[in-house]
Amino acid sequence: MKKTKKRNKQVHNSRAIGLMSRNGTRFAEAAACLAEIGKGFHARGWVLGTSGNFSAVISREPLRLAITSTGLDKGSLAPEQFLEMDEAANVVRGDGRPSAEALLHLAIVGGVGAGAVLHTHSVWSTVLSGSHAAQGGIALEGYEMLKGLEGVRTHKHREWLPILENSQDMIELGEHVSKTLRENVGIHGFLLREHGLYTWGAGLQEAKRHVEILEFLLEVLVRSGAAQSG
Amino acid sequence: MKKTKKRNKQVHNSRAIGLMSRNGTRFAEAAACLAEIGKGFHARGWVLGTSGNFSAVISREPLRLAITSTGLDKGSLAPEQFLEMDEAANVVRGDGRPSAEALLHLAIVGGVGAGAVLHTHSVWSTVLSGSHAAQGGIALEGYEMLKGLEGVRTHKHREWLPILENSQDMIELGEHVSKTLRENVGIHGFLLREHGLYTWGAGLQEAKRHVEILEFLLEVLVRSGAAQSG
Amino acid sequence: MKKTKKRNKQVHNSRAIGLMSRNGTRFAEAAACLAEIGKGFHARGWVLGTSGNFSAVISREPLRLAITSTGLDKGSLAPEQFLEMDEAANVVRGDGRPSAEALLHLAIVGGVGAGAVLHTHSVWSTVLSGSHAAQGGIALEGYEMLKGLEGVRTHKHREWLPILENSQDMIELGEHVSKTLRENVGIHGFLLREHGLYTWGAGLQEAKRHVEILEFLLEVLVRSGAAQSG
Amino acid sequence: MKKTKKRNKQVHNSRAIGLMSRNGTRFAEAAACLAEIGKGFHARGWVLGTSGNFSAVISREPLRLAITSTGLDKGSLAPEQFLEMDEAANVVRGDGRPSAEALLHLAIVGGVGAGAVLHTHSVWSTVLSGSHAAQGGIALEGYEMLKGLEGVRTHKHREWLPILENSQDMIELGEHVSKTLRENVGIHGFLLREHGLYTWGAGLQEAKRHVEILEFLLEVLVRSGAAQSG
Repeated sequence: MKKTKKRNKQVHNSRAIGLMSRNGTRFAEAAACLAEIGKGFHARGWVLGTSGNFSAVISREPLRLAITSTGLDKGSLAPEQFLEMDEAANVVRGDGRPSAEALLHLAIVGGVGAGAVLHTHSVWSTVLSGSHAAQGGIALEGYEMLKGLEGVRTHKHREWLPILENSQDMIELGEHVSKTLRENVGIHGFLLREHGLYTWGAGLQEAKRHVEILEFLLEVLVRSGAAQSG
Repeated sequence: MKKTKKRNKQVHNSRAIGLMSRNGTRFAEAAACLAEIGKGFHARGWVLGTSGNFSAVISREPLRLAITSTGLDKGSLAPEQFLEMDEAANVVRGDGRPSAEALLHLAIVGGVGAGAVLHTHSVWSTVLSGSHAAQGGIALEGYEMLKGLEGVRTHKHREWLPILENSQDMIELGEHVSKTLRENVGIHGFLLREHGLYTWGAGLQEAKRHVEILEFLLEVLVRSGAAQSG
Repeated sequence: MKKTKKRNKQVHNSRAIGLMSRNGTRFAEAAACLAEIGKGFHARGWVLGTSGNFSAVISREPLRLAITSTGLDKGSLAPEQFLEMDEAANVVRGDGRPSAEALLHLAIVGGVGAGAVLHTHSVWSTVLSGSHAAQGGIALEGYEMLKGLEGVRTHKHREWLPILENSQDMIELGEHVSKTLRENVGIHGFLLREHGLYTWGAGLQEAKRHVEILEFLLEVLVRSGAAQSG
Repeated sequence: MKKTKKRNKQVHNSRAIGLMSRNGTRFAEAAACLAEIGKGFHARGWVLGTSGNFSAVISREPLRLAITSTGLDKGSLAPEQFLEMDEAANVVRGDGRPSAEALLHLAIVGGVGAGAVLHTHSVWSTVLSGSHAAQGGIALEGYEMLKGLEGVRTHKHREWLPILENSQDMIELGEHVSKTLRENVGIHGFLLREHGLYTWGAGLQEAKRHVEILEFLLEVLVRSGAAQSG
């Protein structure tokens, strides 16, 4: 018996080590990719100051996310500025605190099964999430660019971008996000009022594409004169 | 007889190989140049998401185009992300599917004898192709920048930029493009409604110049307050 | 006695040399960092022409600042284009004249204990400092981005950005700055009318973050239609 | 006699060679600097298409200018794309045709003794030169940025930026430029209607600074809501 147990423990250990090692590689890849994305978004003015935060799922069972530490310049992220966190927002790799909004990332990963979550603070999303707050969201319709959103096949698609009231209570806000995702099946993103955009994708490239598309469409709305229509 | 046939076949083969080889070089050059153009346009925000598509004629007899595969980030195109297609949009080199709008590229190459076709999705063209749709197009007149369009000699030139209704039926849209080109001889581009700009040139540098000029003039119109005049 | 004196003098000398050497390192580091910041700000159009000026405290006792020379292109600052100045704006290292606004930098360092002061001339600050001059300042409230300002914990924070009348009399303007800082405890920056933004931080990274945040919020205000509300 | 003559000829030849060689160095330096300026301006969207043209005086006696060839992408100028021309716009070095507007460069060099002339086609100058054409110019006053213009000491300075009617007749337009410079002593630039900005400086750095300052102020005017005031 003892021997079997020992063997099991060895098997277990080697599995754990394999998992650690596999996650280590995925973590490093995700961190490198997120740093590159951050650099590009910072150049476009979408994550100025230390705004914005990014995550990528690196393991599903158990759930593990690579996520940016809080309070960093997103234009020059270094590998050591990323954390690995579990499904309860505990840090399991790296030093530092995850973004305050880690709970929102987890709510999105849990709610829609996203593999990557990107949050930006552009001028466009700040302006429109303020001017359209009373309507509860923004309708995007008729634009060819919508076809770049996963699963959308025609410009006649109507995309609803809900606007959630901003809050510093992340537990409350996380629940609000989960409820919004349940009530608006199929959406590709949402806005926090005078705060910014959350979007996601099956992987990082899809999430990055969604950021570019939604930020583009918000800019189109502002420049079309929609900024003060709210 | 047999020997002659064999020799003819050899001659034929060596011609085919020569053609393949010549096209291979032109294909590689066109791909490198289009990748560079894509990088610059992406930086300016003219091909965000995976929007836009580019092609260049690399052979006239038979007709062969280098064209971007569908669904790619135009800011980081790699050589293997281009396809060679024939006059019926069949892929003859490379893996992947050409852009859905390949038929529009062929309609333009056939209609005006263009050597390169570039399609961009800027904020400016999206805004104006929506606001001016009812007029069927946009008139550009009096601007010195017009002189950069091939064959234009004075700022007094009046350039008509037709706006076509957007559609996901590429056969129908291709015919609409051909008809527009027949009815508007001498134009340098057209807009698809809430979609973007198509322009072209004898070669890639001329087509790139036309993109810069037309996007510039559309930006001028929006900033002059023309965005809501439609 | 003589020996002791000599030793004291040696100790003093070696302290002075140590100070010089320590400051030399800090000066070089500050200059390199400010050059990098200048390059980024110039790319964003925040310090065009030879506008803007930057400083960093490299020693408190005695007070020493690294500061840009006057009249330089902030997009390509070289190490030899920085000066070290004392608490009376005397140059103690390097050739050239400090920015005319050196006295404002000293007023800010003295008034709020800043470790770095950054001054930018963006389009946004120029427009709003003109349109809102009659109100004496601009209120920023409700924006998540405010949380990036040091010490701010919620988007409900109300940041007051005073607008001071512009002047070429730097002694007068320096006194006006000191008075403004005394009367508005806790502010993170101020505007000079039709001139630009001054902000600061405990160190250079914090000051750079404050520039990005305040410039962002001013851009949001202009694009929200606030440009002509003054 | 014969010997003396020969010697004189040798002296003359060696002087001519010395001049050629000195100009060759200055020409190469000016071309490198103008290429760098072109790259930066193209990135900002100030010389899209093949718009804009640049020159620098490399010799006064006799007058020689390095100037861009016509019809080039200003974002990627190579040394061989510059020409050396004399006071009558004859090409004395390099292949190609100088910009059609070479006569305007000569009119400015002759009229105000400029050492460098830069011409840009920004969105801002195109918009405002159209909207303010009826007033004959644009007044810039009260902006700190004005102090970056050579010789200006206070933001209270009033800069008059004349707007000239555009024309394709360069002889007529050159005379109009000369007349404008005689009648508006001390100006730092002028606009051609719906065409763009001309400015200059004692040297290239000063001219580049003037472009940045005037383009900045035109952008401020448009964003302040002045675009439709004409």
